[in-house]
Amino acid sequence: MSALKGACIIGQSGGPTSVINASAYGCIKTALENENITAVYGACNGIKGVLDDNLIDMGKEDPAELALMKYTPSSALGSCRYKLKDASVDDTDYKRILEIFKKYNVRYFFYNGGNDSMDTCNKISKFMLENGYECRVMGIPKTIDNDLAGTDHCPGYASAAKYIATSLMEIYHDARVYDTGMITVVEIMGRNAGWLTASAALACAKGAGPDLIYCPENDFDMDTFIAKVKEIYAKSGKCIVAVSEGIHDANGKYISEYGNDLSNAKDGFGHAQLGGLASYLAGVLKTETDAKVRGIELSLLQRCAAHCASQTDIEESFNSGKIAVEKAVEGLTDRMVGFVRSYDENGNYVCNYELFELTVVANTEKKIPAEWFNETKDGLTEDFVKYALPLIQGETQMVKEDSLPRFVHLKKVKATV
Amino acid sequence: MSALKGACIIGQSGGPTSVINASAYGCIKTALENENITAVYGACNGIKGVLDDNLIDMGKEDPAELALMKYTPSSALGSCRYKLKDASVDDTDYKRILEIFKKYNVRYFFYNGGNDSMDTCNKISKFMLENGYECRVMGIPKTIDNDLAGTDHCPGYASAAKYIATSLMEIYHDARVYDTGMITVVEIMGRNAGWLTASAALACAKGAGPDLIYCPENDFDMDTFIAKVKEIYAKSGKCIVAVSEGIHDANGKYISEYGNDLSNAKDGFGHAQLGGLASYLAGVLKTETDAKVRGIELSLLQRCAAHCASQTDIEESFNSGKIAVEKAVEGLTDRMVGFVRSYDENGNYVCNYELFELTVVANTEKKIPAEWFNETKDGLTEDFVKYALPLIQGETQMVKEDSLPRFVHLKKVKATV
Repeated sequence: MSALKGACIIGQSGGPTSVINASAYGCIKTALENENITAVYGACNGIKGVLDDNLIDMGKEDPAELALMKYTPSSALGSCRYKLKDASVDDTDYKRILEIFKKYNVRYFFYNGGNDSMDTCNKISKFMLENGYECRVMGIPKTIDNDLAGTDHCPGYASAAKYIATSLMEIYHDARVYDTGMITVVEIMGRNAGWLTASAALACAKGAGPDLIYCPENDFDMDTFIAKVKEIYAKSGKCIVAVSEGIHDANGKYISEYGNDLSNAKDGFGHAQLGGLASYLAGVLKTETDAKVRGIELSLLQRCAAHCASQTDIEESFNSGKIAVEKAVEGLTDRMVGFVRSYDENGNYVCNYELFELTVVANTEKKIPAEWFNETKDGLTEDFVKYALPLIQGETQMVKEDSLPRFVHLKKVKATV
Repeated sequence: MSALKGACIIGQSGGPTSVINASAYGCIKTALENENITAVYGACNGIKGVLDDNLIDMGKEDPAELALMKYTPSSALGSCRYKLKDASVDDTDYKRILEIFKKYNVRYFFYNGGNDSMDTCNKISKFMLENGYECRVMGIPKTIDNDLAGTDHCPGYASAAKYIATSLMEIYHDARVYDTGMITVVEIMGRNAGWLTASAALACAKGAGPDLIYCPENDFDMDTFIAKVKEIYAKSGKCIVAVSEGIHDANGKYISEYGNDLSNAKDGFGHAQLGGLASYLAGVLKTETDAKVRGIELSLLQRCAAHCASQTDIEESFNSGKIAVEKAVEGLTDRMVGFVRSYDENGNYVCNYELFELTVVANTEKKIPAEWFNETKDGLTEDFVKYALPLIQGETQMVKEDSLPRFVHLKKVKATV
C-alpha cells in the first residue's frame, strides 16, 4: 500500500472511563510524530464535533501538558451519544462528514468508544468507500462494560474492575466492624453483561469479598435470593451482596423495575436508564430480616476513579491508540484494535495486539461464559479470577500535585484550514 | 511518678475510619515493646469486649502480620456503639469493668474512638480513681468527622478528606463529558460539623471541584439553593453541588426529612440516622430544570477507602497510639492525645503531639469557624484550604498483593490469666 498523506481526526464517544484518554493520547502522540499525518485534529464531543465543524488542533497543545491525558479520566475531547442513521435511510450526516473531511483533507479517522462507536466507524468507512473518498478508519476500543466482541478484554474494564474489587474489600471490613447484624447490597454497573459485577469475585479471591454475586447473564429469582441471604445471615450475622444494575427475572423484567416506577428515561441509543436497585433490594431484605441493611450504589465513581486505575490497563489503552495510527498509516482500514491474550514460558500474562474487522465487532455484545459461573449462578469460578487478575496489575503512575491528581488542561485551539 | 507494672487493654469504638487501626497498631506495638507493660490485650468490640471478658492476646500475633494493621481500614479489634450509663445512676458496668481489670491486672486502658469514646474513657477513669484502683486511662482519637475539641484535627479525617476531594475531581471530569445539561448532587457524611463536606473545597482549589458546598454549620434555604443552581446551570450547562447529610433549615429541620419519611432509626447514642438527601435534592432540581440530574451518595466508601488514605494521616495516627502508651507509662492519665499545628522556618506544616484533658474533649463538637465560609455560605475560603491541604499529603504505603490491598488477618487468640 502507498503512503497516504493527510490530516487525521480523533474523536471520543460513549460513557467515560478512567483510561479512554490514555488511548486518545496514544493515538494523538503517535499521529503528531508521524510524517504522513499532516495535522491532528480532536473532534469536540465525538462525531458531533465533526458535524458541527468543531475541531481542535492537537498540535497547538503543550506536549508536557498533553502527556497528562494518559492519567486523566473521562473524555478530554468531550463525548456524545449520537447515533448515525443508516445512510440508506438518511445520508445527510454522512455528506456533512465527507464535506468536513474534504475541508481539512482528513485521510485518517480514529474513533474511540464502545460498540455503538464501532458501528459509527463502520458506517462512515462504508460511506467514504462508496463515495470514492480515501480515508482510513480505525476503531479504538473502550468500555468499562468489557462487552466488545473479538477482543479478549476492553480498555477501561480493568481499571473499573480494580476499583470495584478494592472498594468491596474495604466495604467488607467496614461491614464487619460491629458485632450486630448487617446486610449490605452493592449495586454495580452493567446492563446486559456482568463483567463489572463479576470483578467483585477478585475481592472474594482475597478472602474479603461479597457472599453473593448476581450478573445479568442469569435470570434472578427473588425468592431464591431472599432465602440465600437469610441462610448466610443466619450463619454469620453478615451478608454482602453484589448485584449488577441489569439483573432481571426469567421474564426479562428488570428487578429495578419491581419497586420503582422506572422513569423510562432512555439514553441516545434507546437503552433504558437503570438505577436505584440497591435501595430497592435493601428495602426487601429489611422486611425479611432483623438486620441493619445498607444499599450502596457505586455510581459513576466506578467508571472515573482514575486514582485506582490499573497501570496495565493504562499502558494497553495507550498502545491501542498508538497501534491504530501505525496500522492505518501502513494501509489498513475498517478495523478495531483488539487484544489477544497469551502466556509466556513462565505463565505470565502477555497482551498481543491484533486488528478485528469492524463488522465483527459492531453491535455485538460479549457476555461472561456460562461455565465461569458457579452452579447456583450467584458466584464466579476460578476461571474468571484467572482471566481478570492479570488485567488489574500495576498502580497508576498518575502525576499528583499536593497529593491530588494533576489532570490535563487542554488549550483547545480551534482548528483552521 | 513511679513505674506502674501491669497489663494493658486497647479497645476501639465508633464508626470505622481508614486509619483507626494505624492508631491501634501504634499503641499495640509500643505497648508490646514496653517493659512495664506485662501483657497487651485487645478488647473485642470495644468496651463490650471488656464487659463480656472477650479479650485477645496481642502478643500471640505474628509481628509481621500485625504490622499490616497500619494500612487496614475499619476496626480490626471490632467496634461498638455502647454508651455507659452515669455511674451515679447505674454502676453495674463499671463494677464489671473493675472486676475484669483486676482479673487481668490491667493498669493501662487505651480507648480509640470519637467524642463518645472520650466520654467512656472519662467515666471509667473517674470510677477507677474513686474506687482506689490505679489504672491509667488514655484516649486515642479517631473520627472522620474531625469534630473533637482541643486537637487541631482528628486521625481519620484527612484520609476521608483526600478520598472526597479526589473523587470530586474525578466526578467533575465525568460530569463534563457530554455537551448536554448536567447537574450532580454529591452527598457527604457529617451530621453537625461540615469538615468532610468542606474537603470538597480542596478539589475547587485544583480547579475541578463543586460549584456549591453546603455544610450544617449554616442554615440551608431551599429557595436560595434552587436559584443558585439555576443561575450556575444557565451559565455553564453544568452544576455540581456538595451537600453534607446534616444540612438543615433555619428551624433546625433536616433537609433530608423534607421528602422522606425519616425512618427514625437511631444509633446507640440517640443520633438520628440520615441518608437519601442526594436523591431528594436531585428530585427537586429535576422539576426545576431541564438538566439530567444525578444524585450520588459517597456512602461508607468515604470512611473506609484506605487505598486513597493520606500517609500523613496514617503516620500521625500511628504516633497518637504510640504516644498514648509512652505518656501513660510516664505516669499521665485521663488525657487524650491530640495534635497542635505549627509551621517550620520554611512554612512547612509540622504536627506536634500534646495531651488534652478528657473533660475538655468529651462530648464537645468542634465546628468549622464561621469566617472560613464565604459570604453566601455556599463555599469555603482559602483559610480552609490552608488548614486541610497539609493533612492529606503523601500516598499510602499500603502493602498490595496482586495489586489489591493486603489487609491484616489477626489470629485473635483468647486472652487467659
